[in-house]
Amino acid sequence: MAAMAAALAPATTSLRLKPYSTLRFFSFYPRTTITNTLTPPLLFPPILPRTFQFPSARRRLCSVISGALHSGEAVERTRPEPPEFAEKLRGERRVGEFRKKLRIADIKGGPDEGLERLGQTLFVQGWVRTIRIQSSVTFIEVNDGSCLSNMQCVMGSDAEGYDQVESGSITTGASLWVQGIVVASQGSKQKVELKVKKIVLVGNSDPSYPIQKKRVSREFLRTKAHLRPRTNTFGAVARVRNALAYATHKFFQENGFVWVSSPIITASDCEGAGEQFCVTTLMPSSRDAVHSSMDGIPKTQDGLIDWSKDFFGKPAFLTVSGQLNAETYATALSDVYTFGPTFRAENSNTSRHLAEFWMIEPELAFADLNDDMACATAYLQYVVRYVLENCKEDMDFFNTWIEKGIIDRLSEVAERDFEEVTYTDAIELLLKANKKFEFPVKWGCDLQSEHERYITEKAFRGCPVIIRDYPKEIKAFYMRQNDDGKTVAAMDLLVPQIGELIGGSQREERLEYLEARLDDLKLNKDSYWWYLDLRRYGSVPHAGFGLGFERLVQFATGVENIRDAIPFPRTPGSAEF
Amino acid sequence: MAAMAAALAPATTSLRLKPYSTLRFFSFYPRTTITNTLTPPLLFPPILPRTFQFPSARRRLCSVISGALHSGEAVERTRPEPPEFAEKLRGERRVGEFRKKLRIADIKGGPDEGLERLGQTLFVQGWVRTIRIQSSVTFIEVNDGSCLSNMQCVMGSDAEGYDQVESGSITTGASLWVQGIVVASQGSKQKVELKVKKIVLVGNSDPSYPIQKKRVSREFLRTKAHLRPRTNTFGAVARVRNALAYATHKFFQENGFVWVSSPIITASDCEGAGEQFCVTTLMPSSRDAVHSSMDGIPKTQDGLIDWSKDFFGKPAFLTVSGQLNAETYATALSDVYTFGPTFRAENSNTSRHLAEFWMIEPELAFADLNDDMACATAYLQYVVRYVLENCKEDMDFFNTWIEKGIIDRLSEVAERDFEEVTYTDAIELLLKANKKFEFPVKWGCDLQSEHERYITEKAFRGCPVIIRDYPKEIKAFYMRQNDDGKTVAAMDLLVPQIGELIGGSQREERLEYLEARLDDLKLNKDSYWWYLDLRRYGSVPHAGFGLGFERLVQFATGVENIRDAIPFPRTPGSAEF
Repeated sequence: MAAMAAALAPATTSLRLKPYSTLRFFSFYPRTTITNTLTPPLLFPPILPRTFQFPSARRRLCSVISGALHSGEAVERTRPEPPEFAEKLRGERRVGEFRKKLRIADIKGGPDEGLERLGQTLFVQGWVRTIRIQSSVTFIEVNDGSCLSNMQCVMGSDAEGYDQVESGSITTGASLWVQGIVVASQGSKQKVELKVKKIVLVGNSDPSYPIQKKRVSREFLRTKAHLRPRTNTFGAVARVRNALAYATHKFFQENGFVWVSSPIITASDCEGAGEQFCVTTLMPSSRDAVHSSMDGIPKTQDGLIDWSKDFFGKPAFLTVSGQLNAETYATALSDVYTFGPTFRAENSNTSRHLAEFWMIEPELAFADLNDDMACATAYLQYVVRYVLENCKEDMDFFNTWIEKGIIDRLSEVAERDFEEVTYTDAIELLLKANKKFEFPVKWGCDLQSEHERYITEKAFRGCPVIIRDYPKEIKAFYMRQNDDGKTVAAMDLLVPQIGELIGGSQREERLEYLEARLDDLKLNKDSYWWYLDLRRYGSVPHAGFGLGFERLVQFATGVENIRDAIPFPRTPGSAEF
Repeated sequence: MAAMAAALAPATTSLRLKPYSTLRFFSFYPRTTITNTLTPPLLFPPILPRTFQFPSARRRLCSVISGALHSGEAVERTRPEPPEFAEKLRGERRVGEFRKKLRIADIKGGPDEGLERLGQTLFVQGWVRTIRIQSSVTFIEVNDGSCLSNMQCVMGSDAEGYDQVESGSITTGASLWVQGIVVASQGSKQKVELKVKKIVLVGNSDPSYPIQKKRVSREFLRTKAHLRPRTNTFGAVARVRNALAYATHKFFQENGFVWVSSPIITASDCEGAGEQFCVTTLMPSSRDAVHSSMDGIPKTQDGLIDWSKDFFGKPAFLTVSGQLNAETYATALSDVYTFGPTFRAENSNTSRHLAEFWMIEPELAFADLNDDMACATAYLQYVVRYVLENCKEDMDFFNTWIEKGIIDRLSEVAERDFEEVTYTDAIELLLKANKKFEFPVKWGCDLQSEHERYITEKAFRGCPVIIRDYPKEIKAFYMRQNDDGKTVAAMDLLVPQIGELIGGSQREERLEYLEARLDDLKLNKDSYWWYLDLRRYGSVPHAGFGLGFERLVQFATGVENIRDAIPFPRTPGSAEF
């Protein structure tokens, strides 16, 4: 950390790596041109001088600018004149070095919230959230998306580029490059701010910019999915979503699991569950041909759709789950997990359903239902802890603005032992409950959201609960039959507010039991040949679970509508962007 | 590390966490039953005694077995008799603890290749690779997929379970549980082996098991995609693929990038490039209805396909790239990356093409082409270094069996500065080459694989090369126009053996230039409204690149056919499993 801070500090001697990227902006947007960009669009963009060339060797990506750097300084020409053939072969031109960018999160997230950088000359690049012009001083809040916080840039009329403030060209949504000195902030909201030495407008923002300071509804923002990550809420959701994804990989990798990409398109006949999307090249696929004739679809002599002409030679679908494929790898590599998109073509226009969502499906070999429950618990606690530790500012934001008490709720989940109860006991518990349910309770019924929430929120007072050993009739064919002949080794993990977050089971590893179950359900055993093979050749007890990633994002952020938990939601009638 | 080793060492006193999982196998497969499992299938699986219950509290997932543990020892009953309702609410039953499994990789990959565990009693679980029965001793090679190496299990006739060897039930492909003592190996292939105390057949392997010791072709194994991860080659590919994926996440996360899931289904009109799959619910999607009538497809009065009845209300497709979506997040969060599946409905039956493949697409804000090249270089070197350091055994295997010299080739890539050459200079270089190309070379032509390989393999003697500044006519509309008016700020990264591995560009951030380009190409500007918005509101210079993940897997493993670089390949006519 200290080494990094040192590496990013402004050099007093000449830098080994020259900050060409920063010079570029001066070159591209000379002051006279910049003011022009705000007036008639025909003057934008500036016509660049033909003589300008990108500097080449040894660049750094948007990093600290040297304190010695001033505008007006000539752009250093390090790129040689076009070399001769022989010179090239000697390798005169090398690709430059990549350096991590200095982000606002790095400055304000430092050990002392930025105070350790007092006096440093830095630059930040980002978008204007607000601008307040007072008589003697102008405050510009700049956000670069690396954190919720803006960098408050305080600017006197003597700062270079102040004419852009005066001309009104620096507006909400515009992009800026700001150079300044870190000073202690007078305000209570932050410890440091940037005293502006120089400001450059990189890209102006048309007055029609739809995300102004006034609060806009989340419904409206769904129609602006390309701009909504520039808001506090969606920026925070994106960062927490990212943290949950990375924590997922970390957890499984640290525990020796192998990530397996299960297929998205499948012509396999053995998924079954849920309505599926058809994937085809039989339909006219040219985007121009919205007015497509039926004649384009190949027919057999009998007038049926001729699937043999389709891309895969038969009907193909989007996957609803990678589990069966994951089992093939678990019975070779022991422990694996998938993390990829899955699909449901169900016409559910609710706040809990998406047509396209990401799933995490670990599969453990030499494991039973207890191992599965232990893994699900450890996983959930790990990712929740990771977010609480790594996304403090965003979580504080959710706690204040989205769901009061969410930090306490998540902390409880991260720390408490989860409860375990059988389905049969859960039914008994519901029957004894002093509460009238909409859906009547009896042994054999599927648990509804109201039942699940009663159990986790009331009966176990906010503690996550795992219900296990469900009646086999309400569960999938591949779940392992328990000795009672009535139940299967299935489990659902329930959490307060959400209800079911994770569903899993031990898989039926006994060939005869599995075949008998397929027969019971009148499923075609031939379609399952490869799945049954896993039981023919070195079958092992194994178990796994599935978790809808967007549900997890909802759980961790408190956003009520699942459409706000994924960047570009796909729902009935909507696949924009 | 020391702490972990200590944690996994056999306890001399009673373990806090009892190894219930291991006990379970004794209970499930008593010896009399196990031998039965090999004879008529009706006797398999064993009928479990009704009195057996899963132990519940405090489990550990398949870990070290206590040295004190012997078969015949009663299964400890820690689960209470079904508690009363009130007891449950007191939380008597808690989900157990999850512990990392002790894998063969942990044993043989230890600091001294396992010698530090001499004398320890351990157990391993895995699948039989080979069994050699000699007069006095039997060698069983057990693999658990955690590494290429098997655990050699050496068994005298006095070991418990030896009758299963005698009866011939332990065959290639069978799954085993083996308990033994770590001893120094007599053989030269490994430092340690397991002297078997006890062996339990978990699942037998039918004699029809298709992956016997004799070498089978990769073509044949593609028809057994559910079993091929049990071979050395595909096990190693799976582990290296996993390492590359994790290294990808690590690189971007460590550099402050946010993972963004770009949408898979898109009804957006602005992708354009490449043939796309149609995603629809208009086609009869029931799996039973292979014989589907055309009558099921809704028609308009004019006899056209009625897209308004489709799930999304208009034609929808599988994405060919997440880039345009990634740009929306880059211009809010600064640096982002996607890592997800993409699709091409091209009828390319080659060893280089898949209909479904994974792509990595970073997008950097406030960055130009030089930053982009630097990032691509740093990324590639990072993941190559990660694999060389973390997959030594698998890489040795590839070096010996798949591509001689691959380790040297990758080490060069990880260490050398990459060369940089303009397209114009590359053309000059090809024109001066003392070589006849199949495709003639002139300025403006697209570079073919033979050209790319000549440049990286011959002209630059095996050094990776980035070619930049391509003619705008052969590149996509969104690439930034250079000042010469003829070329765009595009780059392709070429590596020996593969040719193009990465393609990227600086994006056109200037609204007028972008609109003019769309007009030139007769593309409908209205379709790009949201993409153009990014240039209307705070546009910034930005750049990114795309990398086909399976190409990277090929590059890092040397497998020649891309169908062997993904678990379940999808190609024309093939979407099995």
